[in-house]
Amino acid sequence: MSQEMKSDIEIAQSCKMKSIKEIATQLNISEEEFEPYGHDKAKLSLSITDRLQGRPDGKVILVTAINPTPAGEGKSTLTVGLGQALHKIGENSIIALREPSLGPSMGIKGGAAGGGYSQVVPMEDINLHFTGDLHAITTAHNALAAMIDNHIHRGNDLNIDVRRVTWKRVVDLNDRALREVVVGLGGPLQGVPRQTGFDITVASEVMAILCLASDLDDLKQRLANIVVAYTPENEPVTVKDLQAEGAMSLLLKDAMKPNLVQTFENTPALIHGGPFANIAHGCNSVAATKMASKLADYVVTEAGFGADLGAEKFLNIKARTGGIDPDLVVVVATIRALKMHGGVDKDQLDEENVEALKKGIDNLAKHVETVRSFGLPPIVAINRFLHDTDAEIDALKTWCEQQGVEVVLADVWAQGGEGGIQLAEKVVKTIDEVESSYKPLYPLNISMEEKIEIVASEVYGADGVEFTENAREQLKEYQRYGWDRLPVCMAKTQYSLSDDPKKVGRPEGFTVTVRELRPAIGAGFIVALTGNVMTMPGLPKEPAALNMDIDEEGRAVGLF
Amino acid sequence: MSQEMKSDIEIAQSCKMKSIKEIATQLNISEEEFEPYGHDKAKLSLSITDRLQGRPDGKVILVTAINPTPAGEGKSTLTVGLGQALHKIGENSIIALREPSLGPSMGIKGGAAGGGYSQVVPMEDINLHFTGDLHAITTAHNALAAMIDNHIHRGNDLNIDVRRVTWKRVVDLNDRALREVVVGLGGPLQGVPRQTGFDITVASEVMAILCLASDLDDLKQRLANIVVAYTPENEPVTVKDLQAEGAMSLLLKDAMKPNLVQTFENTPALIHGGPFANIAHGCNSVAATKMASKLADYVVTEAGFGADLGAEKFLNIKARTGGIDPDLVVVVATIRALKMHGGVDKDQLDEENVEALKKGIDNLAKHVETVRSFGLPPIVAINRFLHDTDAEIDALKTWCEQQGVEVVLADVWAQGGEGGIQLAEKVVKTIDEVESSYKPLYPLNISMEEKIEIVASEVYGADGVEFTENAREQLKEYQRYGWDRLPVCMAKTQYSLSDDPKKVGRPEGFTVTVRELRPAIGAGFIVALTGNVMTMPGLPKEPAALNMDIDEEGRAVGLF
Repeated sequence: MSQEMKSDIEIAQSCKMKSIKEIATQLNISEEEFEPYGHDKAKLSLSITDRLQGRPDGKVILVTAINPTPAGEGKSTLTVGLGQALHKIGENSIIALREPSLGPSMGIKGGAAGGGYSQVVPMEDINLHFTGDLHAITTAHNALAAMIDNHIHRGNDLNIDVRRVTWKRVVDLNDRALREVVVGLGGPLQGVPRQTGFDITVASEVMAILCLASDLDDLKQRLANIVVAYTPENEPVTVKDLQAEGAMSLLLKDAMKPNLVQTFENTPALIHGGPFANIAHGCNSVAATKMASKLADYVVTEAGFGADLGAEKFLNIKARTGGIDPDLVVVVATIRALKMHGGVDKDQLDEENVEALKKGIDNLAKHVETVRSFGLPPIVAINRFLHDTDAEIDALKTWCEQQGVEVVLADVWAQGGEGGIQLAEKVVKTIDEVESSYKPLYPLNISMEEKIEIVASEVYGADGVEFTENAREQLKEYQRYGWDRLPVCMAKTQYSLSDDPKKVGRPEGFTVTVRELRPAIGAGFIVALTGNVMTMPGLPKEPAALNMDIDEEGRAVGLF
Repeated sequence: MSQEMKSDIEIAQSCKMKSIKEIATQLNISEEEFEPYGHDKAKLSLSITDRLQGRPDGKVILVTAINPTPAGEGKSTLTVGLGQALHKIGENSIIALREPSLGPSMGIKGGAAGGGYSQVVPMEDINLHFTGDLHAITTAHNALAAMIDNHIHRGNDLNIDVRRVTWKRVVDLNDRALREVVVGLGGPLQGVPRQTGFDITVASEVMAILCLASDLDDLKQRLANIVVAYTPENEPVTVKDLQAEGAMSLLLKDAMKPNLVQTFENTPALIHGGPFANIAHGCNSVAATKMASKLADYVVTEAGFGADLGAEKFLNIKARTGGIDPDLVVVVATIRALKMHGGVDKDQLDEENVEALKKGIDNLAKHVETVRSFGLPPIVAINRFLHDTDAEIDALKTWCEQQGVEVVLADVWAQGGEGGIQLAEKVVKTIDEVESSYKPLYPLNISMEEKIEIVASEVYGADGVEFTENAREQLKEYQRYGWDRLPVCMAKTQYSLSDDPKKVGRPEGFTVTVRELRPAIGAGFIVALTGNVMTMPGLPKEPAALNMDIDEEGRAVGLF
């Protein structure tokens, strides 16, 4: 383990990048399939996947984690590091990640593209405007909002109930003051007054759609299906009714193309799409993952939060919708984080505590069971930290042996791919030796209640699910609309297996309460809310933006 | 004149584009100075202008027009056509245009990048997201807004009066319902409620700043100077007080780089920045115009609306601020538009009417006088239309001869550069023969009232200026803040030389009323409003967006 004190941005700026054209050429991508954005980023044509239709799919490795703690798990760093390590042991690998949102970058210091010597570059661009995908999504989302209010203002032929417009507006910023607003003030020339709000762009259904659409046709069809409002008789009004899907598709035609960048060690990476992992499914795009599986033999990808949210949705929603057949799941943990799940305070983590560790392993155990319940082999990867002791590591290894779980230590932050070679070898060996038999946890033709109950009992370990009266009424309506055949997208706290963020470890004897449902008919799922979900973050007292700047040569300063 | 019925987008899509790299190579731009965005767009490093510091500036030709009418004048088309024509006669020419706003494209059918065989390409990209400059401006503008509301929410150390926050938010869309909004609703965790609104992005002071900044340092300084609010004691609060200029500069660092594209005939074009021509100065960026004048011998550029707004501001604000020394002004008119200034209805324009034409020429005459008052030689360019008669053209030529004004017919929409060769030859000859002696109309060290009076009397032909009591009080405050040494930016109707849009031709015996002033201290001018200015357009009953779509190959459909 290195004790270097270089920051992520310093490391990123020290990277010897290859030109992106060279990276593309190595992937046998032709000039026509490739659009450079500067010398280190590019968009790739969706036709690549069609061209390689006959080639067998590469192996898809999903990286997930225990329930996140303030100690940090380093899931993205591990994902990048594993991709680099596979490359180092001579395998043809590619990484498929989500693209970060600008809002949080301006708020709280913290990168979103891996870290140390396992990050994607150019990290400044990736964390700022990148290739404009999020701006395109913001624009398409808000163009629809403008068309809705214009429709109402111009006579409201569709009979939209102004109290039942569910389509809000979005900005890719943390802006608390926009959470609840009144628009249309100022008299008859300024539109019709009504209360609404703004979400952050990554919470837009357009983002979820972009990430689940297989191609432009499918994108347009899904956009057309979005429900934006209801009539006074509670009948849904869709984008198709407003004839807005063509213009929205036009605004999104370039955003649909996966973005090619590279890692610190020049491993190719596709970074594309990044929906919320609570009110949406929290995975990078189907288009990028499928393209990646045609371009390389091993695809390393990740999903948001812990396995109870990100992996569950990757496997029940994304893989099913996109026809992706995953081969193996890496569950990331750290000794520190496991100790927090065992009840240790954040400021006590540097002290050895084997008992707390053993208790915290229960959380890991549940996620390992979940992976197996989808028919997939799990490997536990431990991101090493300076203060991890041998006794702690031995205790974890002993547990893994007892459970028949593979476990590997990795140190990819400080050592890059080199620090993940053992993990890479284990991944390749397991895929070779263990037959995977991925299957979703539930079929689509059961009721929405049953789907929610299956996820709650099998993934969360809950004793049951309670539905509020409001939720039951909504479900009745959804049945009438024919929406009950969609998969469920659970919106639950990421900090606990239960719906109570304070219950760390592996809680038992709890029920989950579904308070409200929200349809995402374009994306193709029904969101079940088990608590309040924040879809527009605020800025802290001292936002990270205060320290951001450019130097004399126009380079980024203060960005992580 | 051609009678072809091809649409602008059909013509654009038939263009045989050169790769943008080839265009850049022809301009001796090196790989390091050049960032491709796809194969047909690029951003250029500001270091190019520094590298060519020793090279003499190319000649700068400003294209302006008579007061716009519903008949259309074709100023952008003429600008592109003249650039192409100069190329055709063997001159080294380049075009410098504004970049279009997305909002109006979604609203009312109509291109913003020239037309016919005199347009810039790829027109779809230029009219959609282009290289993301407008999205970057939107984001920087709204990040500042979020930081203001967050500052107020987090204790308001700067003592901002929530009733005196002048910084609104922006979207690059036509969205009437956002003109007047209330934000911060929902209780103590959601910010502080206050009334505010949204403008369209091109009305943002950030856009005006980007277009007047000479480099990144100057950009940051100007951003720091923006006044966003006042204290209860009416003291200005600036971006510098909020420490937001660094983050805003970081968000704008790529947007500051001029964009390189080409015309239908492969003439290089820099398209960069596009502020409003009423509450801002209506010209493309200083950075692009200066770079263009280093890259070529002839730069053809344009300014918004008629010469009373666009050219006046180009010459009193942009050229003075940017140290640009223009050489010649082309005043564009059409026989049809002049007949409208002579009182003819729009549906009577196909009929010959020499008397009305003669009367309408008065409007042209005033703009020609204005150009001369800046010490510059004018050339009148007539964009030919099908129904123009010989008698009408003769009448116009006769008037020009009497006034000693050069006049040339052009047909660049249908014929491209070929249709502007006579004009190009006349431009080159005039620049060779006539000594230009550009000087602004007024010095900066006189009072704001005097500056406004000089513009009103010398450019508009007004008898005088009236100031409302409110305006007088504002001017007194501005003097106290030291803002009276800035140039004035007049916000007046574009349809008339007066402040009454109904007074076409050359009105006489009128006064101009200044109702309100708005400081744009970052941009470096004081806006004087003579009427209501719409800074957020609305959508029509049937927005153009309804017809927009993508075809099976993902190409734009229904965009103009």
